[in-house]
Amino acid sequence: MQSTITNVLDRVNSPDDVKQLSLGELNLLADEIRQTIIKRVNITGGHFGPNLGIVEATIALHYVFNSPVDKIVFDVSHQCYPHKMLTGRKESFTNPEKYGIYTGYTAPEESPHDLFKIGHTSTSVSLATGLAKGRDLTGGKENIIALIGDGSLSGGEAYEGLNNAAVLGSNIIIIINDNDMSIAENHGGLYGNLKLLRDTNGQAENNFFKALGFEYHYIDEGHNIEKLIELFTKVKDTNHPVVIHMHTIKGKGVEAAELDKESYHWIVPGALDKKEPAPVFESYESITADYITQKYNEDNSVIAISPATPGVSGFTKEFRDRAGIHYTDVGIAEEHAVAFSSGIAKNGGKPILAVMSSFIQRTYDQLSQDLALNSNPATLLIFWGSISGADATHLTCFDIPLISNIPNMVYLAPVNKEEYLKMLDWSVNQNDYPVAIRVPVGNVISTGVEDNTDYSILNKFKVEESGSEVAIIGLGNFFELGKAVKNELAAKMGINATLINPHFITGIDEELLNSLKDNHKVVITLEDGVLDGGFGEKIARFYGNSDMKVLNFGAKKEFTDRIPLDVIYRNNHLTPDLIVEDVKNCLS
Amino acid sequence: MQSTITNVLDRVNSPDDVKQLSLGELNLLADEIRQTIIKRVNITGGHFGPNLGIVEATIALHYVFNSPVDKIVFDVSHQCYPHKMLTGRKESFTNPEKYGIYTGYTAPEESPHDLFKIGHTSTSVSLATGLAKGRDLTGGKENIIALIGDGSLSGGEAYEGLNNAAVLGSNIIIIINDNDMSIAENHGGLYGNLKLLRDTNGQAENNFFKALGFEYHYIDEGHNIEKLIELFTKVKDTNHPVVIHMHTIKGKGVEAAELDKESYHWIVPGALDKKEPAPVFESYESITADYITQKYNEDNSVIAISPATPGVSGFTKEFRDRAGIHYTDVGIAEEHAVAFSSGIAKNGGKPILAVMSSFIQRTYDQLSQDLALNSNPATLLIFWGSISGADATHLTCFDIPLISNIPNMVYLAPVNKEEYLKMLDWSVNQNDYPVAIRVPVGNVISTGVEDNTDYSILNKFKVEESGSEVAIIGLGNFFELGKAVKNELAAKMGINATLINPHFITGIDEELLNSLKDNHKVVITLEDGVLDGGFGEKIARFYGNSDMKVLNFGAKKEFTDRIPLDVIYRNNHLTPDLIVEDVKNCLS
Repeated sequence: MQSTITNVLDRVNSPDDVKQLSLGELNLLADEIRQTIIKRVNITGGHFGPNLGIVEATIALHYVFNSPVDKIVFDVSHQCYPHKMLTGRKESFTNPEKYGIYTGYTAPEESPHDLFKIGHTSTSVSLATGLAKGRDLTGGKENIIALIGDGSLSGGEAYEGLNNAAVLGSNIIIIINDNDMSIAENHGGLYGNLKLLRDTNGQAENNFFKALGFEYHYIDEGHNIEKLIELFTKVKDTNHPVVIHMHTIKGKGVEAAELDKESYHWIVPGALDKKEPAPVFESYESITADYITQKYNEDNSVIAISPATPGVSGFTKEFRDRAGIHYTDVGIAEEHAVAFSSGIAKNGGKPILAVMSSFIQRTYDQLSQDLALNSNPATLLIFWGSISGADATHLTCFDIPLISNIPNMVYLAPVNKEEYLKMLDWSVNQNDYPVAIRVPVGNVISTGVEDNTDYSILNKFKVEESGSEVAIIGLGNFFELGKAVKNELAAKMGINATLINPHFITGIDEELLNSLKDNHKVVITLEDGVLDGGFGEKIARFYGNSDMKVLNFGAKKEFTDRIPLDVIYRNNHLTPDLIVEDVKNCLS
Repeated sequence: MQSTITNVLDRVNSPDDVKQLSLGELNLLADEIRQTIIKRVNITGGHFGPNLGIVEATIALHYVFNSPVDKIVFDVSHQCYPHKMLTGRKESFTNPEKYGIYTGYTAPEESPHDLFKIGHTSTSVSLATGLAKGRDLTGGKENIIALIGDGSLSGGEAYEGLNNAAVLGSNIIIIINDNDMSIAENHGGLYGNLKLLRDTNGQAENNFFKALGFEYHYIDEGHNIEKLIELFTKVKDTNHPVVIHMHTIKGKGVEAAELDKESYHWIVPGALDKKEPAPVFESYESITADYITQKYNEDNSVIAISPATPGVSGFTKEFRDRAGIHYTDVGIAEEHAVAFSSGIAKNGGKPILAVMSSFIQRTYDQLSQDLALNSNPATLLIFWGSISGADATHLTCFDIPLISNIPNMVYLAPVNKEEYLKMLDWSVNQNDYPVAIRVPVGNVISTGVEDNTDYSILNKFKVEESGSEVAIIGLGNFFELGKAVKNELAAKMGINATLINPHFITGIDEELLNSLKDNHKVVITLEDGVLDGGFGEKIARFYGNSDMKVLNFGAKKEFTDRIPLDVIYRNNHLTPDLIVEDVKNCLS
């Protein structure tokens, strides 16, 4: 079976090989790539719908253009599997023993056909415009191509890029891959225009791209290799900025994926074989959705907001349909999402904005200027904030330095379900502060006992267990690690350590920290994030003029790339035994 | 004279008073406001052109709408003087003794007619969309108005806001104040469309705003109060999103300002009286422009880039005209500017992007993902990075936490002209790192001796003077403070302190810091920025497990608002005597 479905693909090791194929062979190649993706992604998990939708266009691109001299930038690059298969990396898809030897995103260290490491959306047009400008400065003649999905077009960086690409004055070809979907459905005025253009075969007078000054071409048959080749050939070597608006079908070739595009955007291993729905366990996502549902039933001014990643925060299709006016997806537009939340809070609403840690990076000035400077009481939920073994483009360990050094922000770190719910409810009901909550990561931890903490008393740390000699400050997810360290200190060194749950990331409890000086020699801080600019350094600064020793534990400042979590933990001394060893050295 | 020019204005203390005036009186009021602005801003300095251009529209807005129930959001708010004069704050403009008692930006603490503290561009549409959503959630009926200049439309947040405002489904009125200028000239494809719309009296088929789904109205006579009132009345209480495209003249009423819109965007005191051009001294801005000019003459791949703030970095009109392809203004689009620079560097160009500290905040994810993760050798020049007495919206003390905690970035802090030039030249010529340079602030300091440091040896601190007991690490602008502290320590305590110029903000010289343990008891760090997440905390963390005392000096994490610099310095112990006192306490 394996041999028959890769008949043509077997012979393709580079784009040059693609150029030698007949139209019939190109179509066979498309089938083989599609079947290979279906088989492999169903085994390994990965981006499914986006890759199935771009098979033909990728083949046509490599047939017409001369990569890597001509340069193709894949926006967010979650549609780069066919590209990787055509540029010398097919073994990562065809050979089970080599599945996953390459990352699922473009990566220059893998191949000269990949220009950038990309995993966040809306960046391709700006990056490609830069490549084009670099070419113009150095006397190059190559084609520069950006391939960007319609969903990514809601992001401000994409618009800034288009606005500037349009006046570049030289060759740039921007291909809009319009499958009428983001991860979930699209939101925004632009999508009305894209629909109008699709419905009129690109002929409508109102045309967003023409308004910006681009030469515009529409192709409805985005899976027709012959027609794609014809159009790409026509615009190749253009001397001015061109937009190709290409209509494709997300999930093309798999009926279930074409029908339920959101569920098949990214799939887990075995998703295609699944007969029965997986059992639903309580999670911090389900807790969040349940709380919001209950809250907006009590208070009409409550609204949940997502920047196009509802799955991250438990905002399922059912939740969204049910919520009505109490839910808004603003599209991939984190900057807007934060300013929008500030405006809602200013005018009496109670916004709850849910963002993944890696994507809160897409808005800083809005957190600072639009929100914190104005002290509007919006609630931000930061999901997945933790050290992780993820791809370098999706690390989630930088949110603490990003958020916690902004004045006026209150950033909270609950350690269990009860604290999370109490903090969330306090935040939604108060009117004084912009509040972010670092939603716990992992299985739900429940004490079964309601949390009665008054979080309006800012920067008050909680002493969970009082001891002496060593004090452990375990922040958020790492409070559990703190417990383990306490046990290890008792077992290995006979020390009865103090265990502290700080609750607050944005400030320190000076009174408590001063009191520790009486009978402690070492304070250790544990944070599930990067050390630089983080929580622990503030404790180190506080104790700088005293005799207290301080050991900060967290992650080194680096872009790790699919490093197993246990390796990262070991490298950063984030295990009870390594921490206790460091304490021993410090005390000796 | 004073009494005659404020004949009508004398009677106006609130928008209600505006509503009582006849058209003739409204026109007189416009003249009086304009003359008052001209007189006052020529004495105090301030935003000139933007305010002169918005006089009539502001009067018409307050005539038609019912502020503060109806809510007007002024983008960047550097055009809010007429609004302030009509909402109970005219004394700050008419009474020399009260000049400046109110900030030059909108500020809710001053008046319920101001919704947000705003000083960065492109935020108004998102904030207004939030106000509208808050209204819809709480059953309000008021009009929500955003007033945004054409220059601000190049920013991604403005586009994200428009994309979402268009599908709000209820009342929002967005007024595009089109004077065909940013601070400097506009750049981007959008501006072709705005020109087309102006040239066709709003009738052109290609219409950016209609493409996004807005009801669209054009008014060419943006200084005709009668026609403005007519149009505003027509759209008042609309039940759907509306764009009014209003053509105005920046600097209206002052010939010199109408002719040279850039120079009169913001003026210094006495600018209108100036007969002779001020003498030009060497500055870090002129040094920058001179270096770039020389460099692109040697190397065709060099390009200077500004996100619409060329004045910040010495990119004068003459410089821009002369530079040709070696200069690009990308419009107000910092996100694009960073990604664009990364792309240029990837394709062989040598980009030098100049940004003001306060505005580098407008791009974080691009610094991290588009640039640092890809290790492309772009050069960023961060201007004005320092603790300052500025308005809360334009603080320049947060760039160190923002930039320096991103992996792969190299952030440098020169202390004089020679170091700055050496670092700049090293950065432009190397191919390994994305480099940011914190351009020194203040008068040029020159040693007259060429700097021969090899900056490719990362994180190597320089010991300027070797001593014992106390080591002073004086970063960038505060190296001079470090010298003064050294002198004060000698005079007051007889201590011969070690003085260190760290050069690097993004890493620490562990070897040197370890060696200090031999004969030093205290290390003090001095940084011209906020302490939280900054440079000094990393030194405190390093010494956490040792007996070394560490004192970090810098600014508290807070949004100061026009606090005189000497007060900020005193509050933060940033004077030699207060620092020496802290050292004394620490050693005792």
